[in-house]
Amino acid sequence: MLELYYAPHTCSLVTHIALVEVGAEFKLHLVDFHKNEQRGQHYLAVNPKARVPALVTGEGILTETPAMVIFVAQTYPEAQLAPLGSPYELARVQAVNSYLCSTLQVAHAHRMRGYRWTNEEAAIEAMQRFVPESVADCYTYIEDHVIKGPWVMGASYSVADPYLFTLAQWLEDDGVDPDQFPKVIEHRHRMLDRPAVIKSIDEELGG
Amino acid sequence: MLELYYAPHTCSLVTHIALVEVGAEFKLHLVDFHKNEQRGQHYLAVNPKARVPALVTGEGILTETPAMVIFVAQTYPEAQLAPLGSPYELARVQAVNSYLCSTLQVAHAHRMRGYRWTNEEAAIEAMQRFVPESVADCYTYIEDHVIKGPWVMGASYSVADPYLFTLAQWLEDDGVDPDQFPKVIEHRHRMLDRPAVIKSIDEELGG
Repeated sequence: MLELYYAPHTCSLVTHIALVEVGAEFKLHLVDFHKNEQRGQHYLAVNPKARVPALVTGEGILTETPAMVIFVAQTYPEAQLAPLGSPYELARVQAVNSYLCSTLQVAHAHRMRGYRWTNEEAAIEAMQRFVPESVADCYTYIEDHVIKGPWVMGASYSVADPYLFTLAQWLEDDGVDPDQFPKVIEHRHRMLDRPAVIKSIDEELGG
Repeated sequence: MLELYYAPHTCSLVTHIALVEVGAEFKLHLVDFHKNEQRGQHYLAVNPKARVPALVTGEGILTETPAMVIFVAQTYPEAQLAPLGSPYELARVQAVNSYLCSTLQVAHAHRMRGYRWTNEEAAIEAMQRFVPESVADCYTYIEDHVIKGPWVMGASYSVADPYLFTLAQWLEDDGVDPDQFPKVIEHRHRMLDRPAVIKSIDEELGG
């Protein structure tokens, strides 16, 4: 059975939603950041990068959200979470996911995890001041060029949807005005109509 | 025919090498950063993100290296640049590429492109001071956990190889001591024995 290591309010929600969407049987393991469990010996054996998520499969352990969600889509092709029949269409989905992880998520991370890129307090604060601007720039690109509607890639729901949804939950906390990005906000609402999304959030945050 | 927009000394070399490896017919277009062409009207119509690379295909334009190289591998399956028959093995390749683009390349970018994450000069300089440490941390992970040898994924050469090679060319400029990472450096040498690598570099820098 698959096993997902997750922490609430992180991008592990993306793979969590994908697993629920495809109807996979899987076990959830909380990695408690308050106890610094991501740096504990047990978790470092799962993922030496000391980050969530990680997915234990019958063949080995996978990390990195873009890789994990395509694995889920390929393992459960009947759920049609990715256009597996077309190298070009699949690459379009992967390009969106790659942008989300390497540009939007990185811009966002400068608010809470600036220590990854400097050990100087004043610079960390300078990075935090700039987050509203750099994150808004990403959403401008997403609003104008990425979201086709009703789903990210157009008519078909795909693994790009839970990815955008998960990061877009943090938009207001990043100091970005949601009124500037009606398509992003509408997409966020639309995602909350999906039972798999509600179920995943409830499993992570519900009592 | 495929068309690759590139700039020397950037990660567009990854897709360039992959295209030469598979024997694709393609046209190269230089995007001249010295003339700021990446922000010119012509290139923004190709890639509104104002970055290289971009790959023009018969179906549309692709961006983001991890997506582009899997597209190349899937379009030329006989070249065996990715383990296309196994969702798990393919996800392992994608996990490496995702790490390279979202962690190593991002750490490296804080040396030359700190303006992406702050507009304060002192903070940009603080970021630059930390690059040797953050980039070395990435190579420690790569040396200890990623490179299986002789190629990144083990016995089979894959699209992860030109990706690591391209970024590892910048290791010394990032202030990292190469002697700490013998597997990375050995891999860099091994890549320079491949005609496709020499040809790609020559097409970008020669003449």
